[in-house]
Amino acid sequence: MRNLPLEKVYRQIEPGPVVLLTTARDGRANVMTLSWHMMVEFTPPLIACIVSDANFSHAALRKTGECVVAIPAAHLAEKVVRMGNCSGRDVDKFASIGLTPKPAQCVVAPLIAECAVNIECQVADKSMASRYCLFVLEAVKAWFDPKQRDAKTLHHRGFGQFAVDGEMIELKSDKP
Amino acid sequence: MRNLPLEKVYRQIEPGPVVLLTTARDGRANVMTLSWHMMVEFTPPLIACIVSDANFSHAALRKTGECVVAIPAAHLAEKVVRMGNCSGRDVDKFASIGLTPKPAQCVVAPLIAECAVNIECQVADKSMASRYCLFVLEAVKAWFDPKQRDAKTLHHRGFGQFAVDGEMIELKSDKP
Repeated sequence: MRNLPLEKVYRQIEPGPVVLLTTARDGRANVMTLSWHMMVEFTPPLIACIVSDANFSHAALRKTGECVVAIPAAHLAEKVVRMGNCSGRDVDKFASIGLTPKPAQCVVAPLIAECAVNIECQVADKSMASRYCLFVLEAVKAWFDPKQRDAKTLHHRGFGQFAVDGEMIELKSDKP
Repeated sequence: MRNLPLEKVYRQIEPGPVVLLTTARDGRANVMTLSWHMMVEFTPPLIACIVSDANFSHAALRKTGECVVAIPAAHLAEKVVRMGNCSGRDVDKFASIGLTPKPAQCVVAPLIAECAVNIECQVADKSMASRYCLFVLEAVKAWFDPKQRDAKTLHHRGFGQFAVDGEMIELKSDKP
């Protein structure tokens, strides 16, 4: 994996792909799927996300204040769905689903070797975690897989239905 | 346009499409492009969005507490880009870009006739508007265009580059 400059993180999140969120607590890593996220700020890159308190990851995120946001390409769709339908309370999802955790640089939560992009994050604001389960994350280090430079991502439409990135349109615009 | 049940709103927003946000203030309608948005809650449907205070719409949203979130299909890409590169301070964007405002049912902000989906919203929480330019919107009424039922949407990657929805994947999942 190679360094992804932090000022380019928004270009990965803004299109709205399904992402995977990893946490690590008491030596145990976990991972969940997540589509309720958005960019909040370019610099430093802030990402908001909703992690329901019904998810095992919610408490880990609150307690450790760290996570990794990883972006899977479309060929991982089946693993994404399996991941969304079990809980880290019951199983080691990395092992049971067949994903490879890799040490991160700035956080204890692991990167996911199979993902096209990995973004190491620290929780910057959890003041909305009780009311909305909303966490504001700050991206502190990011990586991309040069072999998956043009990865097609997944966009969840509910109940296992996904739109995969198709045609690319390029129009002249000065807007980031 | 036909009624879109409010419990289906998340299926339109969760995939992360570029949306248009309309406001109306002092008898004057405006519209902007927006990609920094996410679902916050299923019922009632809550949508968070970031509307920079550099945008003319920010003050209208704060003052009126109302807006419409409209989803354009990919054939509107050129208009979307033109809209993002001018300001409602200077021009009537509906007229200059060629979009048709239509009266909404519950809010003063207009629907956009050309869009596949229109969601009438009230600002439910602006307590994060000063710190993050973050507004929590509650969807109070939604519409879809039956002629654009399978609309392909746009996902912005920065500087006028968009991924258009391509292949659809359907996998068995009990997760909404």
